[in-house]
Amino acid sequence: MRNLTQDNITQAVLARLADTPDPRLKEIMTSLVQHLHSFAREVKLTEGEWMRGIEFLTRTGQMCDANRQEFILLSDTLGLSMLTVAMNNDKPAGCTEATVFGPFYVEGAPGVDLGGDVANGAAGVPCEVRGQVRGLDGEPVAGAELHVWQADADGKYDVQRPGQAHQARGVLHAARDGRFHFRSILAEAYPIPDDGPVGDMLKATKRHPWRPAHLHFMVKAPGYETLTTHVFRNGDAYLDSDAVFGVRQSLVADWVRQPDGRYLVEYDFVLNPVKAGA
Amino acid sequence: MRNLTQDNITQAVLARLADTPDPRLKEIMTSLVQHLHSFAREVKLTEGEWMRGIEFLTRTGQMCDANRQEFILLSDTLGLSMLTVAMNNDKPAGCTEATVFGPFYVEGAPGVDLGGDVANGAAGVPCEVRGQVRGLDGEPVAGAELHVWQADADGKYDVQRPGQAHQARGVLHAARDGRFHFRSILAEAYPIPDDGPVGDMLKATKRHPWRPAHLHFMVKAPGYETLTTHVFRNGDAYLDSDAVFGVRQSLVADWVRQPDGRYLVEYDFVLNPVKAGA
Repeated sequence: MRNLTQDNITQAVLARLADTPDPRLKEIMTSLVQHLHSFAREVKLTEGEWMRGIEFLTRTGQMCDANRQEFILLSDTLGLSMLTVAMNNDKPAGCTEATVFGPFYVEGAPGVDLGGDVANGAAGVPCEVRGQVRGLDGEPVAGAELHVWQADADGKYDVQRPGQAHQARGVLHAARDGRFHFRSILAEAYPIPDDGPVGDMLKATKRHPWRPAHLHFMVKAPGYETLTTHVFRNGDAYLDSDAVFGVRQSLVADWVRQPDGRYLVEYDFVLNPVKAGA
Repeated sequence: MRNLTQDNITQAVLARLADTPDPRLKEIMTSLVQHLHSFAREVKLTEGEWMRGIEFLTRTGQMCDANRQEFILLSDTLGLSMLTVAMNNDKPAGCTEATVFGPFYVEGAPGVDLGGDVANGAAGVPCEVRGQVRGLDGEPVAGAELHVWQADADGKYDVQRPGQAHQARGVLHAARDGRFHFRSILAEAYPIPDDGPVGDMLKATKRHPWRPAHLHFMVKAPGYETLTTHVFRNGDAYLDSDAVFGVRQSLVADWVRQPDGRYLVEYDFVLNPVKAGA
């Protein structure tokens, strides 16, 4: 295996994967190498461009820490995240649709009682959130676990503020009838973090970094597929140009201003039962 | 642009690149997004696999520092580096062939006089290196700048030893007749660093991490294309299974043991003249 050329090197690399014990890993690596090489051939990548790519990926990795995940941002802004979500969440009609996970979920968010306030001092207009978790046949999902997280009035998640305690995130459980309600703050549109390599990519391609206002949910219950989704705020200017391609019309809800100045949003979740034997 | 599906999301992402001012960047991003999405579709990437990919890339970036470039190792072991070299170094017959740059070049290596010793105390069997730098028509390239770097007897480059001063690397200039000679140590086969994510990938695919013994050269001279290459040591067990696919038969030379126990390797470099107007 000497003197490999641009015409036979791909086969040589694939041959080197022949002994991969895990067939799924072999399948993934085989496809990855083919597409990576096809990309380089299609654009006839120069050595200088190759080095800029190496530097971009290195900076992306080095931007990551316990509170920032620049590679998820990159995947989100290139549409890979939403493509993966779409391929893996083909649920029966009537189920709540999934959307991107995003880079701002954290493990260990505080538990909150039903009716409690997840804001924990986060800046923003007070808001009440209500709904019910049901299964596909309309059955209430008693005690469903809801993880919620969102940005504050300045468009920042708590993890974007160094040293900040948990704010505007929490974990609660639905009642026996599947109903839940909690207090938080009004969701606002915000730009994704654009002071790193992903921001440089957006600027170089003249793309804006904005996401329409939304509230993140992850809903879990035994016997049902976990649902990772958002509820988007109707009327937002960015619903048709979400920087991460995540908007689904079925997830858009009205945040309604109440006489006392607070907002109220109501949204029900319909979970997909796990198939028998799955 | 709501309700994107696995069938139309790629076009939606490409549409978002429409205003990219630099046509070359637009071309590269368009091809990259298409191949990235095609890969995910072809293997029907799961959400768990997506997250493992995010974690792998993050670890790869975080493994990089001033002395280690894990993304170059990844590119090298996936054959992308050699493919890029092959596409961009289609030189006339008679020119010395190029091969991969690798992750171990460093700026600021010490200057060495002709005949001097680049080893600087690196462990290894003493070796003399001789040759001539010529142009394609046989003309000597007076004063050509030669950057050389190599691993020591333990298979380690200086930058792999924390706090180590420059060893087994240097910059020298050919004489008026293009000839050069310097002292170093015998090149030995070595494994690429495999204690990081690239090593994990090699293990998971049952690939060995070894590179055949070689000496790196980068040769520069006004009026000629810069040549980045290796000279490989004839007889090495890994010449046909180089972990980074870099071996070219024309770059293999004999390291000849001399009566005093030292080795001698002779190799001439033929540079490609820059085309008029290029």
